[in-house]
Amino acid sequence: MISKISAIGVDPAGGISRLAFSPEEREAHRMVAGWAEDLLLRVVEDPAGNTMIRRPGRDPRRPAIAFGSHLDSVPRGGRFDGVAGVVAMVELMTLLEEGEVTTEHPLLGMAFAGEEGARFGEPCIGSKAVAGLWEGRDLGSVVDADGITLAQAMTAVGLEPTRISEARWAPGTIRAYFELHIEQARILEQEGRQVGLPDVISGSTRLKLVLTGRADHSGGTPMLERADALMAASEVILAVEALVTDPYHRGTRGTVGRVDVEPNSLTTIPGRVTMTVDIRDLDSDRQRRTAETLVEMALEISRRRRVELIVHLLADTSPSVLSVWLRGVLREECTRLGVSHRVMTSGASHDAQILARIAPAAMVLVPSRDGLSHVPQEWTSVADIARGIEVLRDSILEVDRH
Amino acid sequence: MISKISAIGVDPAGGISRLAFSPEEREAHRMVAGWAEDLLLRVVEDPAGNTMIRRPGRDPRRPAIAFGSHLDSVPRGGRFDGVAGVVAMVELMTLLEEGEVTTEHPLLGMAFAGEEGARFGEPCIGSKAVAGLWEGRDLGSVVDADGITLAQAMTAVGLEPTRISEARWAPGTIRAYFELHIEQARILEQEGRQVGLPDVISGSTRLKLVLTGRADHSGGTPMLERADALMAASEVILAVEALVTDPYHRGTRGTVGRVDVEPNSLTTIPGRVTMTVDIRDLDSDRQRRTAETLVEMALEISRRRRVELIVHLLADTSPSVLSVWLRGVLREECTRLGVSHRVMTSGASHDAQILARIAPAAMVLVPSRDGLSHVPQEWTSVADIARGIEVLRDSILEVDRH
Repeated sequence: MISKISAIGVDPAGGISRLAFSPEEREAHRMVAGWAEDLLLRVVEDPAGNTMIRRPGRDPRRPAIAFGSHLDSVPRGGRFDGVAGVVAMVELMTLLEEGEVTTEHPLLGMAFAGEEGARFGEPCIGSKAVAGLWEGRDLGSVVDADGITLAQAMTAVGLEPTRISEARWAPGTIRAYFELHIEQARILEQEGRQVGLPDVISGSTRLKLVLTGRADHSGGTPMLERADALMAASEVILAVEALVTDPYHRGTRGTVGRVDVEPNSLTTIPGRVTMTVDIRDLDSDRQRRTAETLVEMALEISRRRRVELIVHLLADTSPSVLSVWLRGVLREECTRLGVSHRVMTSGASHDAQILARIAPAAMVLVPSRDGLSHVPQEWTSVADIARGIEVLRDSILEVDRH
Repeated sequence: MISKISAIGVDPAGGISRLAFSPEEREAHRMVAGWAEDLLLRVVEDPAGNTMIRRPGRDPRRPAIAFGSHLDSVPRGGRFDGVAGVVAMVELMTLLEEGEVTTEHPLLGMAFAGEEGARFGEPCIGSKAVAGLWEGRDLGSVVDADGITLAQAMTAVGLEPTRISEARWAPGTIRAYFELHIEQARILEQEGRQVGLPDVISGSTRLKLVLTGRADHSGGTPMLERADALMAASEVILAVEALVTDPYHRGTRGTVGRVDVEPNSLTTIPGRVTMTVDIRDLDSDRQRRTAETLVEMALEISRRRRVELIVHLLADTSPSVLSVWLRGVLREECTRLGVSHRVMTSGASHDAQILARIAPAAMVLVPSRDGLSHVPQEWTSVADIARGIEVLRDSILEVDRH
């Protein structure tokens, strides 16, 4: 199944580009919906573009046990990020159908839309919709690098952004949320463990900085008369690194992933640089203070270099503490199955951190080879995913019994 | 005429993009050829794409007095760079035709092809052809940012790159070369002078640096485990500035104009950065030593940051000393006409520095408003260009008499 989904959005430049609310993402959703329909399960697409697969329980009044992940990718990303968890969900539904297992609670398999923040800056768009976090916010103010708004992108693929509030789940309808995902780090591999159980998921503050200097001739303009936007941007980029590695920071990560230079010509001094900053932390306060300090540093650099600075806040998600109860269930089932495991933090963002706001949520992380993720080389073995599915299955059935 | 040429290659993003050997550049050449044909002058396009306008002299055995400039632009450039000198050439031909002035020497009006190095890294492609500087070099090894070779680009617009050596001018066929051009700096404006007479034109060493680190997840990858190509590139960019402004350098200019980041995604650590460096100097030795020192600094930075560095030499043009004789003629004619003038250096490259290798060459610079060039705001007044044409006319006629 992973290889079938991986055939959607193959990028000629390498890797997979199946961006949030792109036609490629929708195609992957239709493929997963088709597999669920083959199992004769009921499939619903909500107004946010999430695909929901319902398997009834013995008692329809009980809240559902939900599990799943997402199907979109970053530009030129890998085959496993998100997809592993959705495929695990379909496999698990298949195992239960073939085994004619009836659960007490209804089960809800999820393929969330638009989890990656790479396109719009804003991550977890689909899971934020089911958690009601779009209430009072404008989908027309969230814009991708080409100036396409989230509302326009959703409309272009046949969704109805004005109805996004209808995607919200009523309180009390979800008993628990489980998500299997690749680790996207190298801790499990380094320690030779099979499963990671996150206690906390990092938050992320994302900024867009636009530095405007003066484009000019590279030969005719003396060094002292320049207002070079790229020199200012380079200082800011190095400031991100210096800031998050200073003695006050522990485990904070700061990344400048995107840089666009204008006019980007060999013989013209750069007049404008647009760049993004992604600050991740397990400490909510430190995360925001780091972003504030960086903006102050960027302002000082810009003033000194006679460059104008405009800062946009693209997204701001707090770190999230996952359910102690569900993690306990997962640990017990790992032990019972003889699966080596450890509790760890997650540096990457996940839909589970949004779901944690409305229901107990937990995650099962499986090893990433060399820790690589968001790149074409991303890889996790079938055996590791199968082991994660076993842990997931037994834990869901354990929660179902209580 | 300037506004007519400016209508070719208008860039939707602002300014004019009439790149070397693009269909837009060829359209501008055809427009200029049409104007010359209206004057009943003979027009020839040579195999390098240069447009040559011949006006016979009384004595056909005498070498020609050549004058002109170029018609291509940088990406999102201005309306005057190059065009001013070609329009001056057409205006001067028109004045001579209308005045029925007969010269002793044949006159040769030039619109050179591909002067700007912005597309291929290599500047003065057309003038290098007439000077025979392509002998033994491969037009297939000169490549633009899209991977199109110079040979392919020429073929695509109907030129014959294999015949480029036929464009070479036979020794002794040129008596002198004059070029009127905008200053592309703010010295004339600051000093309130009308004309600048360059004695030396800066050389330029152009490098392409490719830094390859490891693309990875911006959340999952701890700072210490990164091989971030952009952090390394930012250090190199600041090193360019620090190097050319140290006490050893005087008037050296170093510019990073072009930066391309891969995969250029908000949540992925940059795996590769490709950047250009343009080093200009009036001192030939210092220009090369600066480039060498920069490469050493970039190697040290790359090693320290576990990033691979590959350096390509895109182009290397020496500073050029212009003709003392012709500059003397220009000064005398300026004085006679009451035009305020000064001798100065040229930071920008020009076809004149290539022509200086095969004939006495001189330039007439006219003021650039705010010194801006290679940008849409580039501007020179009609009065300033007209004054430059007068100086050019009288100087050419003076050379013709001797």
